[in-house]
Amino acid sequence: MGKEVERKFLVSDPAWRSLVEADIRIRQFYVAAQPGRTVRVRISDGRSAELTLKFGDRARERDEFEYPIPLHEAEELMAFAIGRVIEKTRHHVRHRGYLYEVDVFGGVLSGLVVAELETPEDVPDEMLPDWLGREVTGEQKFYNASLALGEIPEIAA
Amino acid sequence: MGKEVERKFLVSDPAWRSLVEADIRIRQFYVAAQPGRTVRVRISDGRSAELTLKFGDRARERDEFEYPIPLHEAEELMAFAIGRVIEKTRHHVRHRGYLYEVDVFGGVLSGLVVAELETPEDVPDEMLPDWLGREVTGEQKFYNASLALGEIPEIAA
Repeated sequence: MGKEVERKFLVSDPAWRSLVEADIRIRQFYVAAQPGRTVRVRISDGRSAELTLKFGDRARERDEFEYPIPLHEAEELMAFAIGRVIEKTRHHVRHRGYLYEVDVFGGVLSGLVVAELETPEDVPDEMLPDWLGREVTGEQKFYNASLALGEIPEIAA
Repeated sequence: MGKEVERKFLVSDPAWRSLVEADIRIRQFYVAAQPGRTVRVRISDGRSAELTLKFGDRARERDEFEYPIPLHEAEELMAFAIGRVIEKTRHHVRHRGYLYEVDVFGGVLSGLVVAELETPEDVPDEMLPDWLGREVTGEQKFYNASLALGEIPEIAA
């Protein structure tokens, strides 16, 4: 089990692109979603897959359990997806020693770019990169579960 | 993924006890349960644990995905159980070549004994052992999810 402390930001400035260290093509979907808990399947680069259970409602801290599963079973599980299958490319971008995951969404969510900073520490605002847009930590509509299960958010950084 | 075809019977006659080949102490609980899908954690003999996703509403056939998980994480997951933690001892009993799982429930479900026959074939009634009581295949209240999440059934074989 890991504790997840996560800040989320919208991104419209493309300056982060020159800082990308790695990227991963992700397809993900939920096979269960109830108040306070989700069960997600994620396929990375069409090569590996994992099942993730998340519990808790607090925006910035959640209990998370993650298990690798066979790729072909992840693909079978897609038949049981609740809501949409999310497609995005996740870019690893480092700034002042912190790792940001910049997710560029595809499909019906095209145009949406969300940066996540996952850290056990509180990072002072002056340490954040300039290319981050509006902070949306705690805004449910930008959570992956909402993006899969809810309305398409209007994108405004 | 496996397909599960399962018949369930109540048991009051103790004649099966002389036929037991093996038994397993099981603790199990659900971490998600929605119409047509459940996510279950099972701890067997306090030694191993697995996560099982089941999909489908049909009483006798369901899609099932099963993954081993670390024992200590299964125990942590217990904090997120929906409903009760079921305790039962599962006995493997063979009769005419068919394997029956006879579950003797404990705790608040003490007194309940349910036999399951899992087979891809249709077994004619004359092949069934005499010690089986009333068939309860398809009766939701005797499903493990209902036993964990619902009312305690009145037990009448």
